[in-house]
Amino acid sequence: MPFTAPTADQRFVLEHVVRIGDLAASDRFADATPDLVEAVLEGAGQFAAGEWAPLDRAGDTVGAKWTEGGVVMPDGFRAAYRAYVEGGWGTIGSPVDFGGQGLPFVLAAAVLDTLGAANMGFALCPTLTVGAIEALVHHGTPEQQAQYLPRLATGEWTGTMNLTEPQAGSDVGALRTRAEPLGKDRWAITGTKIYISFGDHNLTDNIVHLVLARTPGAPQGTKGLSLFLVPKYRLDTDGQPGDFNDVRVVSIEHKMGLHASPTCVLSFGDNGDCIGELVGAEGGGIAAMFTMMNNARLNVGLQGVQVAEAATQKAVAYARDRIQSARAGSASRDPVAIIEHPDVRRMLMRMKAQTQAARALVYYAAGQVDRAALGDSDAKKRLDLLTPLAKAHGTDLGNEVASIGIQVHGGMGYIEETGAAQHFRDARITPIYEGTNGIQAADLVGRKLSGDNGGTLAALIAEMRGEAQDAGLIALIDACEDVARHMLAAEIDDRLAGSYPFLTMLSVGVCGWLMERSGRIASGAQGDPAFLAMKAAAARFYVEQLVPEALGLKAAALAQAEVLYAVDAEAFAA
Amino acid sequence: MPFTAPTADQRFVLEHVVRIGDLAASDRFADATPDLVEAVLEGAGQFAAGEWAPLDRAGDTVGAKWTEGGVVMPDGFRAAYRAYVEGGWGTIGSPVDFGGQGLPFVLAAAVLDTLGAANMGFALCPTLTVGAIEALVHHGTPEQQAQYLPRLATGEWTGTMNLTEPQAGSDVGALRTRAEPLGKDRWAITGTKIYISFGDHNLTDNIVHLVLARTPGAPQGTKGLSLFLVPKYRLDTDGQPGDFNDVRVVSIEHKMGLHASPTCVLSFGDNGDCIGELVGAEGGGIAAMFTMMNNARLNVGLQGVQVAEAATQKAVAYARDRIQSARAGSASRDPVAIIEHPDVRRMLMRMKAQTQAARALVYYAAGQVDRAALGDSDAKKRLDLLTPLAKAHGTDLGNEVASIGIQVHGGMGYIEETGAAQHFRDARITPIYEGTNGIQAADLVGRKLSGDNGGTLAALIAEMRGEAQDAGLIALIDACEDVARHMLAAEIDDRLAGSYPFLTMLSVGVCGWLMERSGRIASGAQGDPAFLAMKAAAARFYVEQLVPEALGLKAAALAQAEVLYAVDAEAFAA
Repeated sequence: MPFTAPTADQRFVLEHVVRIGDLAASDRFADATPDLVEAVLEGAGQFAAGEWAPLDRAGDTVGAKWTEGGVVMPDGFRAAYRAYVEGGWGTIGSPVDFGGQGLPFVLAAAVLDTLGAANMGFALCPTLTVGAIEALVHHGTPEQQAQYLPRLATGEWTGTMNLTEPQAGSDVGALRTRAEPLGKDRWAITGTKIYISFGDHNLTDNIVHLVLARTPGAPQGTKGLSLFLVPKYRLDTDGQPGDFNDVRVVSIEHKMGLHASPTCVLSFGDNGDCIGELVGAEGGGIAAMFTMMNNARLNVGLQGVQVAEAATQKAVAYARDRIQSARAGSASRDPVAIIEHPDVRRMLMRMKAQTQAARALVYYAAGQVDRAALGDSDAKKRLDLLTPLAKAHGTDLGNEVASIGIQVHGGMGYIEETGAAQHFRDARITPIYEGTNGIQAADLVGRKLSGDNGGTLAALIAEMRGEAQDAGLIALIDACEDVARHMLAAEIDDRLAGSYPFLTMLSVGVCGWLMERSGRIASGAQGDPAFLAMKAAAARFYVEQLVPEALGLKAAALAQAEVLYAVDAEAFAA
Repeated sequence: MPFTAPTADQRFVLEHVVRIGDLAASDRFADATPDLVEAVLEGAGQFAAGEWAPLDRAGDTVGAKWTEGGVVMPDGFRAAYRAYVEGGWGTIGSPVDFGGQGLPFVLAAAVLDTLGAANMGFALCPTLTVGAIEALVHHGTPEQQAQYLPRLATGEWTGTMNLTEPQAGSDVGALRTRAEPLGKDRWAITGTKIYISFGDHNLTDNIVHLVLARTPGAPQGTKGLSLFLVPKYRLDTDGQPGDFNDVRVVSIEHKMGLHASPTCVLSFGDNGDCIGELVGAEGGGIAAMFTMMNNARLNVGLQGVQVAEAATQKAVAYARDRIQSARAGSASRDPVAIIEHPDVRRMLMRMKAQTQAARALVYYAAGQVDRAALGDSDAKKRLDLLTPLAKAHGTDLGNEVASIGIQVHGGMGYIEETGAAQHFRDARITPIYEGTNGIQAADLVGRKLSGDNGGTLAALIAEMRGEAQDAGLIALIDACEDVARHMLAAEIDDRLAGSYPFLTMLSVGVCGWLMERSGRIASGAQGDPAFLAMKAAAARFYVEQLVPEALGLKAAALAQAEVLYAVDAEAFAA
C-alpha cells in the first residue's frame, strides 16, 4: 500500500488548532503564509512518499549494521538522506543566520511528522539534529555556531545527544564520563555512553556529539555536569572534517524495533585522544541538556503521531481490501470488505480519532514554541506544561493505535511480512526514551504544576472551559481541575501515585477541547467533503466516547500512595 | 531470573474463586482433594521451572524451523516434551477411560497456566491436544476413541485444529477443503489450511489433525462442513504410526513472536493419498468444531494469564534489583531500587492486580466446565456466557501487562536480550487467534446475551450484586445491567458497535466481584503473610482504581453505530 502524507489533516491542524495565522502575522514568521505552508506540506509529502517510505521495510528487515569500520545503514538510506539534505528539508526550522529558513518550529514538526510516518526509524536522525542545533543556538560560542551550525542546519552533519551511561539510566546525576582540561577550551573526554541513537552511521561525513560529562573537582550530582561538543572528526583549519576524534562505536543494541535507527554504545577517548569543547558554562550541562531535550520531547511525542498515522493508513487499506463474511443482520449473505463490519469500523474510527487527537495535541504544543519565540511568556509557560503531555500521551496513543492496527489485520497482522507488526514494535520505544512517560508524569505534577502554584494550568483550563460545549467534555475539564487542586495540596508520594492517570486525563481533556473545536469547524467548512466529514465524525467519536473513558481515571488520579506501599517490595515476589 | 510457578495464587484461586471443594464433593472429582491439588500444583511448578522455563529464550531466538523433512524444534524441546509425557502432566484432565486422571478441567488449566508461564509457545502444543481430545470424546466413534485417545491423553501424540484457509479467515463458511468418500468411512482429503499451530514438529511420532472439510454435494456455508480425523501417519494394524498420510507442511509463518510455536501451512493430499475419517455426523463439523474451540478459547484466555505472570515476575525482579535515583521527597539522596518509586510501584501493582484478576476470571470460567460436566445446566449457561469474556479480556490483560513489563525495564525493556520484549511479542497473537476478540464481543452481545433473553447474565449479575460491597463496584454492576438492557433492545449494528466496550466492562465487573471477595478472604486468612498481604493490596487496588476505569466505558457501550457509518469507507482514507 503506497504511503500518502497526511497533508489535509496537517493543514487543518495548523490552521485551526495551532492558528498558524497568528504566527505569520509576526515579522519573524511572515514567510509562513498559507501558500508556503501548503507548498512545504505538499513537497515534503511527495518527497517522503517517493524517497523515504519505500525504505521503511528494509530499515526493519536489514536494519543498521555494526561493522569494524562503523555503523552501516541499509542500501538506499545514504542516497535518500542526501536527497533530504539537497531538498532542503532539514532547513525548514533552522536559524536563518546559519543557512536555515527560520520557519516556525511547528511547520518543521509537520515535515518531521510526514517523514516519520513514511519511515519512523530514519526520521529519528534529523529529529536528533534539531536538539543539537537548539543546544548550540542557545549555548554555543559564536565560533562554535559558525563552525557547526551551518552544516547541522542543512543536515549535512547530524547531531546526537549523549546522556545515558550504563550505571545511570534516567539518573543523570550519576554520570561518570570525565572531561579533563587541556587548555584553550580543549577538554579530553573519557567515558562510555549508551542508548545513543544514530551515534554512528554512514549517512554524512561528520557527526556532532553533544556529551554530558563531569569536570575535575565538580560537585556530585547534576550540578557537576557540563555539556561538551565532541565531533566524530575534528575540524581542520578549513572547517572540514579531519582527524578521527577517538569516538568509537563499540556495539549497537539488538532492539525489538526501530531497526533503522542504530542505538549505539559509544566509547570516548579509549586512546586518550578524544577532544571536546565546552558548550555553555562549566557546570551548566543540565540547563543545556534541557534545552536539547525539551523540544526533543515534543518530537518524540510527534513520533507517536507518525506511527499512528502509518498504522492507520495500513489498517484502513487492508480493511477496505479484505473481503470476509456477510454483514451481520444483512439480507445479503455476500461477504463484504471488513471495514463494513461494525467492530472493525469502531477500531478504525478509534485509530483515526486517536491519530488526529495526538496530532492536535503535539502540534498545539509545538505552536507554543513559536509563540514563545515571539516573546509570549504565557506561551512559554503553556509549552512547559504541555511538553510532558505531548511526549507521554502522544507516544501512548502511537502505541495504542499501532496495536489496534495489528488487530484489524487479524492473523495477517502477526505475520511480519504484512508490516503492521513493524509499527507495533517500532512504537514501543517511544514511551521510554527522552524521559520515560512515568518521568513525564512526575514532571507534570512536580515542577510543571507546582512551579506557579497551578496558575498556568488554571489559565489553560479556563480557556478550555470557555470553548467546550459537550457536557461530558466539561465534566472531564472539571475533573481535571479537581485533581489539580488535590495534587497541589497533596504529599509528594500521593501526587506521584496519581501522576500518570492525571497526565492521561488532562491530555484527553486538551485533545477533547481541540477535537471538539476541529469538528465544529469541519462541519461548517468548505473543502474536500470526504476529509471534512471524516474529521467531523472522528471529532464526534472522540468527544462522545473517548472523553468519557478518561473520566474513569479520576479515582486513580486521586488515589493515595498508601495502597502501593501496603506491602513491602519482597511481597511483590510472593 | 529463575521462574517460580505461581502456586500460591493458583491454590488461593482454586479454593476461593473456583471453590474446587464443591467439585471434590462429587463422586467424579472425589480425587481432587486439597492434598492432591497441592501436589499437582507443586509438582507442575517444579517441572515447569526445571524443564520448560530454561528453554523459553531458545524458543524465541532459535524458534521452530521448517526443513524439507518437516518442522524441527529447537534443541532441548524434544527431551523436555518427553519429560512432560513421562511425568504424566498431559493426563491431569484427560478421560479416565483412556488412561487419563480425569481430574477437573480447571486443575488441568492450572497446570497449563504454569507450563505456559514458563514457556508460552511450547505450552500451546498441549493446549491444542486438549481440543482434539474433547472433539473425540464427544464426537468420535468407539474405534476412533480406542485408537487415538490413549495416546492423546498422555500427550504421546499431539492434536491440531485445522480450520482456517487462505480465502477464509474467520469466515469458516467459506472453507473449500474437500473430502471425497472412498468407502468404509475412508475419505480422501484435499486442500490447504493455514495458521495451524504445531501443525508439524518433531516432538512425537504422530500428529492427529482434526480438519474441517466439505463433502460432495454438501450445502454451501457452515452447514456443509464436516470434521475429519487425519493423522500425519496412518495407523497400522497394531495401531502404530505407519505410512505417511500425505499431509505436507508447506511452510511456517515468520511471526512477530511465539517463535517456539510453528504456525504451519499444511497441504492435504498433494499426491492424492491423504485419508481421513469422519468425526461425528456428516455436516456436523461446526458443532464438533465448537466443542474443540470452546475450551480452546478458555485456554487462550489462559495464555493471557500465563504471559501476564511471566512478565510480572520479570518486572518485579528487575525493579527490585535495579538501583536508580533517590526517592522523591526523601531526606536521603541515596539511590534506591526502582520498585520504591511510586509510579514504578503503581505499574507493578497494576501488573499484579491485572494478572490475579485475569487468573480469577479464567479459572472461574474453567470451573464452570467441571460444574457443567457434573450436570449443572446453569453452570453450562454461565460457561457459555463467560467464555468470550475469558478469552478476550484474559488476552487483553496479558497484552497490557506485558507492555507495562517493558515499561518497568525502561530502555532495557526494548533490548531483546532482557526478555521483556519477548513476552510483549508473544502476547500479541492471543487477541487474534481462536476467534478475534472482536468476534468474542459479537458472540457476547449476540448468541450469549440474546440466547435466553439475558437470563443467564441477569442471574450472574444478581449473584455479583448480592456479594459486592464497594460502591464503585456496585455502580459498575449496575452499569453492566443498564447496558445489557440496552443491548437486548437494540438493533444489531448498535449492539455490535458497543460490543467490545461492553465486554470489557462486564469482564472488569466479574473480575472486580472475584477480586473483592479474594481480598476480603485474604485479609482474614491464615497462611503466608506476604502472599496474603499482596493479595489484599492487589484486590484493593483493583476495586478502587481499575473498576472505576471500566465505568468510563459505559458511554461507548451505549453508543450507536451511526457515528461509525457517518462517513463511507473511502473517507477513512481521506
